[in-house]
Amino acid sequence: MSKNFGNKPILAPLPVMVVGSYDENGIPNAMTISWGGQCGHHQICLALSKHKSTENIRARQAFTVHVADLGHLVIADYFGVAKGKDENKIEKAGVHTHPGDCVDAPVIEEFPLVMECRVISITEEFGETRVVGEVINTRADERILDEAGNVSLAKLRPISYDSTVHDYRVLGEKVGRAFHDGLALK
Amino acid sequence: MSKNFGNKPILAPLPVMVVGSYDENGIPNAMTISWGGQCGHHQICLALSKHKSTENIRARQAFTVHVADLGHLVIADYFGVAKGKDENKIEKAGVHTHPGDCVDAPVIEEFPLVMECRVISITEEFGETRVVGEVINTRADERILDEAGNVSLAKLRPISYDSTVHDYRVLGEKVGRAFHDGLALK
Repeated sequence: MSKNFGNKPILAPLPVMVVGSYDENGIPNAMTISWGGQCGHHQICLALSKHKSTENIRARQAFTVHVADLGHLVIADYFGVAKGKDENKIEKAGVHTHPGDCVDAPVIEEFPLVMECRVISITEEFGETRVVGEVINTRADERILDEAGNVSLAKLRPISYDSTVHDYRVLGEKVGRAFHDGLALK
Repeated sequence: MSKNFGNKPILAPLPVMVVGSYDENGIPNAMTISWGGQCGHHQICLALSKHKSTENIRARQAFTVHVADLGHLVIADYFGVAKGKDENKIEKAGVHTHPGDCVDAPVIEEFPLVMECRVISITEEFGETRVVGEVINTRADERILDEAGNVSLAKLRPISYDSTVHDYRVLGEKVGRAFHDGLALK
């Protein structure tokens, strides 16, 4: 037996992306979203509603994406519930920023994994603003690297948004090898 | 200290989506991808390379998305490593399909969570084919529902693709509440 949920997508796991941008006065802002993802070898897309961050990204043609991790869950959630039009979210969260090395967008120092992105297209679709960014540089704190120098998701502990019950879940243990385990069926 | 990875995105968690489609003869096919995500209230986007599934979706204007779960990891990985042009993946995997109730695409019965999607746009960008689908119906097996009738990710156990070391990881435990935990900072 199964249950129908109609036209409500239930996709999992959804990412939790903290998007950084500068406003017209150079004030950094951050917004947390779960709509979007990787859309090419070097591209990330975001689906944004009308927000201060959307205006910022349009004006500056740049943004950062920080991967929300368990250690910064409260801050990431705050960036999703507060409005940049109403309050200085960066100040209230007590985090620190510096300009990206590669793009005109802020890096939030507390997050251990960040991608600096240059806007390559902004389009409107289904009432959302679709922003595609080309990743210019991905930077990881050494604390989340494994012995081989790769980003370790076991150390990062990224979180995911559960859109059905509005929970966060943390990514768990390794359970298989991609492009490998399925070879048993070939 | 930090390490730069250049223009390689490291986004996490990435979904593992098993995309179903019919070819010109009505033969079902499946392909596993991690590029794409939710891009609107009722929309899902896929970034596809040149594949049999891409042709199928273009011709039929429909597809299904099954959320890969721990119980079907090997099958999902197989659908990612094998080519529909070379072999009948559905037969070799030993899974069963039936036509979607709402769209002209196959539902793979073994996967407990599936979205039936109607194509609303197909565009070419950065060498990939971008397909946007409108979710017409999401269907979940009763085995993955919680007591309130919601899809339980604890029961589904969706997997995620780790693009840095090509592993799969399973989604773990609940660690917070969205639109709630961040209110402490407001």
